[in-house]
Amino acid sequence: MSTNDIGKRKLRLAMIGGGPGALIGEVHRKAARLDGRIELVAGAFSSHPEKSRQQGRELFLDPERVYASWREMLKAEAALSAERRVDAVAIVTPNHLHFEQSAAALAAGFHVIQDKPLTLNLAEAVELREAVRKSGKIFALTHTYTGYPMVKLARDLIRAGRLGKLRKIVAEYPQGWLFRKVEDDPGNKRASWRTDPAQAGSGCLGDIGTHIANLSETVSSLKIREIAANVSTMVEGRKNDDNADILARWEGNVSGVIRASQVETGEDNDIGIRVYGDAASLQWRHGDPERLLLRYPDKPMETWSRGQPYVAAASPSAARATRLPACHPEGIIEAFANIYLNAAAAIAAAEAGTPIPEAELDFPTIEDGFQGILFVEAALASAKNGGRWTKLARG
Amino acid sequence: MSTNDIGKRKLRLAMIGGGPGALIGEVHRKAARLDGRIELVAGAFSSHPEKSRQQGRELFLDPERVYASWREMLKAEAALSAERRVDAVAIVTPNHLHFEQSAAALAAGFHVIQDKPLTLNLAEAVELREAVRKSGKIFALTHTYTGYPMVKLARDLIRAGRLGKLRKIVAEYPQGWLFRKVEDDPGNKRASWRTDPAQAGSGCLGDIGTHIANLSETVSSLKIREIAANVSTMVEGRKNDDNADILARWEGNVSGVIRASQVETGEDNDIGIRVYGDAASLQWRHGDPERLLLRYPDKPMETWSRGQPYVAAASPSAARATRLPACHPEGIIEAFANIYLNAAAAIAAAEAGTPIPEAELDFPTIEDGFQGILFVEAALASAKNGGRWTKLARG
Amino acid sequence: MSTNDIGKRKLRLAMIGGGPGALIGEVHRKAARLDGRIELVAGAFSSHPEKSRQQGRELFLDPERVYASWREMLKAEAALSAERRVDAVAIVTPNHLHFEQSAAALAAGFHVIQDKPLTLNLAEAVELREAVRKSGKIFALTHTYTGYPMVKLARDLIRAGRLGKLRKIVAEYPQGWLFRKVEDDPGNKRASWRTDPAQAGSGCLGDIGTHIANLSETVSSLKIREIAANVSTMVEGRKNDDNADILARWEGNVSGVIRASQVETGEDNDIGIRVYGDAASLQWRHGDPERLLLRYPDKPMETWSRGQPYVAAASPSAARATRLPACHPEGIIEAFANIYLNAAAAIAAAEAGTPIPEAELDFPTIEDGFQGILFVEAALASAKNGGRWTKLARG
Amino acid sequence: MSTNDIGKRKLRLAMIGGGPGALIGEVHRKAARLDGRIELVAGAFSSHPEKSRQQGRELFLDPERVYASWREMLKAEAALSAERRVDAVAIVTPNHLHFEQSAAALAAGFHVIQDKPLTLNLAEAVELREAVRKSGKIFALTHTYTGYPMVKLARDLIRAGRLGKLRKIVAEYPQGWLFRKVEDDPGNKRASWRTDPAQAGSGCLGDIGTHIANLSETVSSLKIREIAANVSTMVEGRKNDDNADILARWEGNVSGVIRASQVETGEDNDIGIRVYGDAASLQWRHGDPERLLLRYPDKPMETWSRGQPYVAAASPSAARATRLPACHPEGIIEAFANIYLNAAAAIAAAEAGTPIPEAELDFPTIEDGFQGILFVEAALASAKNGGRWTKLARG
Repeated sequence: MSTNDIGKRKLRLAMIGGGPGALIGEVHRKAARLDGRIELVAGAFSSHPEKSRQQGRELFLDPERVYASWREMLKAEAALSAERRVDAVAIVTPNHLHFEQSAAALAAGFHVIQDKPLTLNLAEAVELREAVRKSGKIFALTHTYTGYPMVKLARDLIRAGRLGKLRKIVAEYPQGWLFRKVEDDPGNKRASWRTDPAQAGSGCLGDIGTHIANLSETVSSLKIREIAANVSTMVEGRKNDDNADILARWEGNVSGVIRASQVETGEDNDIGIRVYGDAASLQWRHGDPERLLLRYPDKPMETWSRGQPYVAAASPSAARATRLPACHPEGIIEAFANIYLNAAAAIAAAEAGTPIPEAELDFPTIEDGFQGILFVEAALASAKNGGRWTKLARG
Repeated sequence: MSTNDIGKRKLRLAMIGGGPGALIGEVHRKAARLDGRIELVAGAFSSHPEKSRQQGRELFLDPERVYASWREMLKAEAALSAERRVDAVAIVTPNHLHFEQSAAALAAGFHVIQDKPLTLNLAEAVELREAVRKSGKIFALTHTYTGYPMVKLARDLIRAGRLGKLRKIVAEYPQGWLFRKVEDDPGNKRASWRTDPAQAGSGCLGDIGTHIANLSETVSSLKIREIAANVSTMVEGRKNDDNADILARWEGNVSGVIRASQVETGEDNDIGIRVYGDAASLQWRHGDPERLLLRYPDKPMETWSRGQPYVAAASPSAARATRLPACHPEGIIEAFANIYLNAAAAIAAAEAGTPIPEAELDFPTIEDGFQGILFVEAALASAKNGGRWTKLARG
Repeated sequence: MSTNDIGKRKLRLAMIGGGPGALIGEVHRKAARLDGRIELVAGAFSSHPEKSRQQGRELFLDPERVYASWREMLKAEAALSAERRVDAVAIVTPNHLHFEQSAAALAAGFHVIQDKPLTLNLAEAVELREAVRKSGKIFALTHTYTGYPMVKLARDLIRAGRLGKLRKIVAEYPQGWLFRKVEDDPGNKRASWRTDPAQAGSGCLGDIGTHIANLSETVSSLKIREIAANVSTMVEGRKNDDNADILARWEGNVSGVIRASQVETGEDNDIGIRVYGDAASLQWRHGDPERLLLRYPDKPMETWSRGQPYVAAASPSAARATRLPACHPEGIIEAFANIYLNAAAAIAAAEAGTPIPEAELDFPTIEDGFQGILFVEAALASAKNGGRWTKLARG
Repeated sequence: MSTNDIGKRKLRLAMIGGGPGALIGEVHRKAARLDGRIELVAGAFSSHPEKSRQQGRELFLDPERVYASWREMLKAEAALSAERRVDAVAIVTPNHLHFEQSAAALAAGFHVIQDKPLTLNLAEAVELREAVRKSGKIFALTHTYTGYPMVKLARDLIRAGRLGKLRKIVAEYPQGWLFRKVEDDPGNKRASWRTDPAQAGSGCLGDIGTHIANLSETVSSLKIREIAANVSTMVEGRKNDDNADILARWEGNVSGVIRASQVETGEDNDIGIRVYGDAASLQWRHGDPERLLLRYPDKPMETWSRGQPYVAAASPSAARATRLPACHPEGIIEAFANIYLNAAAAIAAAEAGTPIPEAELDFPTIEDGFQGILFVEAALASAKNGGRWTKLARG
């Protein structure tokens, strides 16, 4: 990723959300910061004005650009000169705020980088997609795992036919941190909003189900077509779902399993995928993110290692997402940063009047987000119907 | 396992099947031989008399006790004096012969050690179960994987409450050797009978689906209650199923996934299971059979290693199934041999008039086999009904 | 690491070296940038003025603070007002320049963060150590691997006696990238200066031998006392060493092995250490940096996972070096950043007149660097003497 | 290994040692039994006649061929007719008895399969080698680890030049079971004789040092030429060595490290080897014995899996040592059995008057044993001389 990809200056970023104590907001900031090509210059970090200011001080921001509310920020930034105002807004708030904030940011003329899931429900998703299309702005969704170089390699090997014709996908996202009713612990904000249907909508499905569905679609370049879902709430008294085991069919007559759980006690965050073709298969998992396994019927298993020239040869996209040689471990901040860098390059190109063709965008877009909401809706509908096979509505 | 467990003399064994070139028959023989407590003395190794004799010569057997047909063998052995005739018959033929041969062996007064699946269909299973019950003989089914010490440990840790209340099971049996239509290769007997509905009945479900279902029930000590199955034939032109992805519910409100496939290209035989409770979880897989992983919400993951005193303390059953210290690898022949040894001890006890209570039998029995057939039938029924949740018939 | 640890403003940093195409300079910059508490504001990135300027433009630096030479930079920065001038200088040049540049930076009144090895030889090391002591400035050496949280955990578990009395250390640094004479490839600068005795001094010993020696001392909190070394040049025509296998004795009657090689074909960068006590042992390796293995004589092996509360409880130092929950992988940039952050906190404290006691500094210091040079000298001396046991000179 | 390799009948075996409670004797018996081609028919299992008889009863042996002393056995068996007497004697006693018993067995006209180390010292080794040469009998030494198929594959890949020219070997044998003075525990026979210089000679060096030295020579097909050894006794009060870290040079200008320890707390028995050539490298370890890793400078690491056709194609010797398909784990008993089978085939060939050429013998011979004693002697001599490089005496 050379300077020219992004432009002659740093991209100027504002953030909504990510106040004191927030985990994911700080990850976004580190990712944006890492490569020195994006600068956070403004923020409305909390619905509590004082907390927003406190966060701004922590970040050494100009107090004038630390706002008491996100609405105020959008208005004030839009009024700044082109040389000062932010180019893009990062939205890292709980799910129920995504729609309103993203739509408003687009309407105010800003590009948007938003955390997943896209929205709280399908109605919002339809409307937001329309808003993105009309705006002509870049909209990036941080499905983090697609930012890993070895995930890009997996996708590109499959596209190049290295697995033959695809047959099966097994995609799993095991977490255990909600194994008991931790949302009752005072101060566990991370758990409390995610288990509150008003703020999160569905629980496990929206929070990590959308990630694993997106990973399966990204790696295979195939859309999920229909699913049969067993969605449950395993911890007594919890208000939304915390576990989903799903049979799935993708385009191209591929079938398999998608699993997401936040109550698999002792699991950390080892999201992973196996894809089987009629010539070979591959496996990637987050617990060992720097390696991709390829299995063959008639020769030794191969362990591809990030940073090696043979990876770059097979996947220029993985090469661009690589900063360091093999066995100099990169991690999730780099994966996030790859989404930021690619989105920033697209923004710079759009601003320069030479937009990158949609097919070449190497980050999750509004279409990925939309598909995620279709997936959640279909899973909930299937579960309501005793697990009946349910088609995803057509985008 | 001391001598006294088995008796004052070696158990005398006959075998049906396992002729020249057979894989699994030779595994049975090595397992029976390993500990020096069981002696193969007779056999009807093939439906071709000459092949049976050839196999007998390879095994240095007394030619008089190598028979041209299994019917002849049962009759001739039954006519021998108590000091000479075999105690038990091992049946290692294709599935469609299991019922007739086992029933006849029991009727002739012999104990039976039979390969899985129990029978070709439910009608046979009902009848064979009745025959076993009436005979008073020992009937052991070689669900190999339950013979591994670390599987016994897993079961015993769960029974002791180490995982808390169980919630979820993910049980998988990935194979890839049928990834293309290898049954068309001349001479691939192993593939050809398994893909012939007349000899095998269902394909993947009967061959390895019964193994993985049994593993889930053995480790959890919970029966499968209902399933929603996606059963398919992925290789064009194949005559029975080669892939099954199944949502399942076990007793005790436990749910999860059971998967079996023979077309996951590049996979060898890495059957494995993860069980999640509300206090901890465990994982075992055949690719690393000497270790059991325990995961906790609040302390480091533990890797239990076969042969260690702490394993013996937690599971006397695992200790009895252990021959060597840790990191002196034992494998699948030992797992098989554990089924043989435990069955032989039960046979000796039965013969001595002091039968081991059914609850203490530490090998798969007719009930396990019966449950396997219920599982296959339910899976096929669910698949026929568009994946509808289908209860297993009550044993 | 809270803001207060570092101060009310960002630390201002200058860099010497790290021009276009340099690998390690960019790693330093990403590490410095990551947490938003350090700002690179000046640089002399190359001995070629135009390359230095080019790098400055890439970094969006104020052209006035991008210098044609490092001497010019030190002079100009020292002349700036306290509100503008840099606090510290990062030195990321080839080995033969370390001494002169660090000494000059200290003399000009700046704190120094320098890449390893400390100097080209012992004479320089003695002098530089003296210069640091006299200056009262902070001197940090980027022995990267000590920045990993799980390395800090290893050190702290040992200090707390969790392994009992230490007995043995096996410390290995296998690389393979110099497996053939790659320094002859035009444009391979990374290889060419490292294999040039004039620029690098010793080869493998200085480049990675100092890392692995330091890792052994840091984890064990024991100094190496004497060594017997087999130092060799395995690639024909190479001018300095590329392989060293060493028997070693540490303080406290601990013995073992230190290995460093750059010609172990196919190895990437999997530096690792095993430490054995009379009660337990531990293992860490860079190929899986987020985990620490603990082995016991009488209970299951434990896999400690970065980000877990039990890690924080055992090692506050590891907790401070942790940004993300378990299985959200952190990597080598974070390890580097931990050295930068801890050094920056020490610099801020020193500037505030409340210096952190030397024993509490949680980054490699001049003493670590000095010890590294003693190690290299002793290894070369031992090798010259047919592998004779050779004491490290006393610091 | 077909029947014809061994002959028209089972090989008849006698055993010296392996009485009640012995670990390694029972492993020999299981290994001999496994394939049904060798039959244990006689034994002198203990120096206590009653214990020998007890063991014979446990093994269902003819009481007439269970002897009160090994001398008596050799004499009595030699007097039997050719149709009855044993072909070979397995010797599984403590080290100090090896020489006398093996020499006597050879003198009595029997082939010998003996446990390692060859003898207590060099004088005995010289004499025993002479005895073997004169006898014309087969002498096999059970260096178990060379029996593994993947070790044979490693050797054959190297011989075929797949690693290029060899450069380095790192060979390690970590055990922890002697981490404290367990020989003081009443009843720990396994520890007490091994730590008694009168029965064992050296401790760690003879017990496992000979294994790891042999593994390095077998895999590389290169003899160790000189070593610099740090041999120590780490547990206070122990009477022989329990730890050895050694720098080594093999033929062909290959250098590296050999390590053996029985006091690396928490280690089980994870003997392993890495070999580096100028084109590629390989790694095998006992904790994962069914796989061999190959690393390259320019393509993905390969994991070769026992039982696959590509293994058989690269190593007919590995194929012959393989009983089961991939991921049907084989273990140490199979490795032992491979030595027994290959020795038995050699014995049958010798008896048939068509001896297998020495270069084609695929099991450890007297030469391997002799080399092991040279290694132990050189290590002890080097250690006595302050770790001086010491040449192994020429065989």
